[in-house]
Amino acid sequence: MNSITLLQPQKIVFGEGSMKELSKDAILEHANRILFLVATPLLSNVRELVKNIHFKNKEIHLVEYKFLGEPTFSQFETLLKENEGFNPEVVIGVGGGSVLDCAKLLAALINNSQKLTEVVGIGFLNGRKIKLICVPTTSGTGSEVSPNAILLNEETQAKSGIISPYLVPDACYLDPLLTMGLPPKLTAETGIDALSHCIEAYTNKFAHPTVDVYALQGIQLISENLLKAYNNGNDVEARSALLLGSMYGGLCLGPVNTSAVHALSYGLGGKFHIAHGLSNAILMPEVLRFNLSANPKRHAEVARALGITLDGTDEEIALAGIEKIEALSKACNIPQRLTQIGVTEAVLPELADIAMNVTRLLKNNPREVTREDAINIYKKLL
Amino acid sequence: MNSITLLQPQKIVFGEGSMKELSKDAILEHANRILFLVATPLLSNVRELVKNIHFKNKEIHLVEYKFLGEPTFSQFETLLKENEGFNPEVVIGVGGGSVLDCAKLLAALINNSQKLTEVVGIGFLNGRKIKLICVPTTSGTGSEVSPNAILLNEETQAKSGIISPYLVPDACYLDPLLTMGLPPKLTAETGIDALSHCIEAYTNKFAHPTVDVYALQGIQLISENLLKAYNNGNDVEARSALLLGSMYGGLCLGPVNTSAVHALSYGLGGKFHIAHGLSNAILMPEVLRFNLSANPKRHAEVARALGITLDGTDEEIALAGIEKIEALSKACNIPQRLTQIGVTEAVLPELADIAMNVTRLLKNNPREVTREDAINIYKKLL
Repeated sequence: MNSITLLQPQKIVFGEGSMKELSKDAILEHANRILFLVATPLLSNVRELVKNIHFKNKEIHLVEYKFLGEPTFSQFETLLKENEGFNPEVVIGVGGGSVLDCAKLLAALINNSQKLTEVVGIGFLNGRKIKLICVPTTSGTGSEVSPNAILLNEETQAKSGIISPYLVPDACYLDPLLTMGLPPKLTAETGIDALSHCIEAYTNKFAHPTVDVYALQGIQLISENLLKAYNNGNDVEARSALLLGSMYGGLCLGPVNTSAVHALSYGLGGKFHIAHGLSNAILMPEVLRFNLSANPKRHAEVARALGITLDGTDEEIALAGIEKIEALSKACNIPQRLTQIGVTEAVLPELADIAMNVTRLLKNNPREVTREDAINIYKKLL
Repeated sequence: MNSITLLQPQKIVFGEGSMKELSKDAILEHANRILFLVATPLLSNVRELVKNIHFKNKEIHLVEYKFLGEPTFSQFETLLKENEGFNPEVVIGVGGGSVLDCAKLLAALINNSQKLTEVVGIGFLNGRKIKLICVPTTSGTGSEVSPNAILLNEETQAKSGIISPYLVPDACYLDPLLTMGLPPKLTAETGIDALSHCIEAYTNKFAHPTVDVYALQGIQLISENLLKAYNNGNDVEARSALLLGSMYGGLCLGPVNTSAVHALSYGLGGKFHIAHGLSNAILMPEVLRFNLSANPKRHAEVARALGITLDGTDEEIALAGIEKIEALSKACNIPQRLTQIGVTEAVLPELADIAMNVTRLLKNNPREVTREDAINIYKKLL
């Protein structure tokens, strides 16, 4: 078995109401200055929680996260400047992927001599002195367990990854009750994103048995529960399964990561500001059709985890799996075509150029993707 | 889904030759005084490794672990006294379960105002200031990822657990090459022990979906590979699978833990000094037969993971699974009866008394075990 390094929070608390337990976390007990970065809809939950932390005269700084869309470099710099003075010993992010990514970067960069621009890329962070806890409120990004944070470089309009072992949180609290209020559209898009993390890890060139376990489990949980949670946001079992599935997706991100779906999606996010989950949802079936021939067996195993029971060749089973993803996506009213989200043929070469630059993900793809291949995949989706 | 807290090392490095990467670990980079506690057969490997760490004038203290059998309170106290003066910033254990457990306790208790006797039990440790890395050289205990350490109280002849989140190592390195030299007998006994961790977690009263994933994966890996590794110690694929399987077993220990097999085995270890894996191997089939009626479905699922493809009722499938465990055990020349290891009918009441005291594990058992039940189970194995 090839060598692999698995990074994960030392503590993962999962279950309904588990956010309440955060107030008793040993990390908070040992800290005097605590910074919360909180998505607006969660402010009241956090205020409730903070009441229970107010022992021993701790200083608690509650910051509302107000940016829309992918956070940009300059937005993050603003956040950093505003909160550096507080000098927190713990940063706690409560929100979706953008909030968690910013919380992770705050914990890493507050009072750090390294600047943001110096740490963009893989492995440039020298360390992190501030403790970090993440509380996800969407079931998609997996950021609460991953070493990744993504910002938008407004100059180049490119999404930029900051990847470092030091961005894996110390602890995370996964409370399905916090995801109950997520609107159906966001539930669907973030859910398909989480599904894509698992599928891209399982069909990855660098797939590994230790990560396959998470990937298959995630695929199963998400495919069985996404439509249920879409149709009934209060289905707590479905919400629990999705949150767990997206955590497994997040555990795939560090050691193996995603591949061409995410690479081809970069331009849609950066240039067109299409939500990350939505662009992945549109791209995934076509990219999987392109990849299938490189490893029919693995793609068939994905289909099995998606619930396909068909007898047939690996190709046939795999195709049935891809169709199931499309059907799931349709049932959740996710657009199926790029034209539906404003992308025209004229911009495809530019999108392909952006994708070609995401070599850190393209290298993982089971089949080589040329610029022409990328354009063809986009074309099929017009 | 019920709430659960999963604890694990923030970094798990797995794969052939991965021990070499330990010399570049960020924890070592930031430490000046490093203490290695090493099982005798691994001394040369560690000396080789240490050569690569000797940068920046680090002080490295290499301690050979020389105790035989379960480490006792007084043996550990000796170890503690001998190494306190060195004041390490990192403790690295390299060896089987006993070595790792002692390394974990050294990291927790060196220069700690708490005494060993104060921390016996669940959750009494107040913290750990010294970093901790574990490198297992057997595939059984799972100690490298678990919050447990077990010592023998020589006064009461009882095994005593020290259980604490602070005993979960910061990092672990799982290198199958280090397990290649393990003799067949130890391979078999430790392997069945790891299998029992997985099975007792899956059939546990407090089983949880997040832990089931590890349990089933561990059962599959161990049952497919134990005999291969027993027959050919150099089968690196089988060794890898066993080491991974035992890690999954270890990940079951913290959040869910074992049940009656381990409880009934306590007296055999403490009183008769029977190796931990061996006593679990003898007890497991009979305890599973006793437990089966409490949850036939779960026991059938265990059988499926063991490779049973039989059609039938859950009971029939589960029984076939238990027979498969017995067959595996026999094929590995593990004794099947207590009389073979020197246990006579006269001591059964005493063994049952010891078992009845292990309430922290008995409470997990899917079926209540009375003192009489325990005696009956032992009797069937005479």
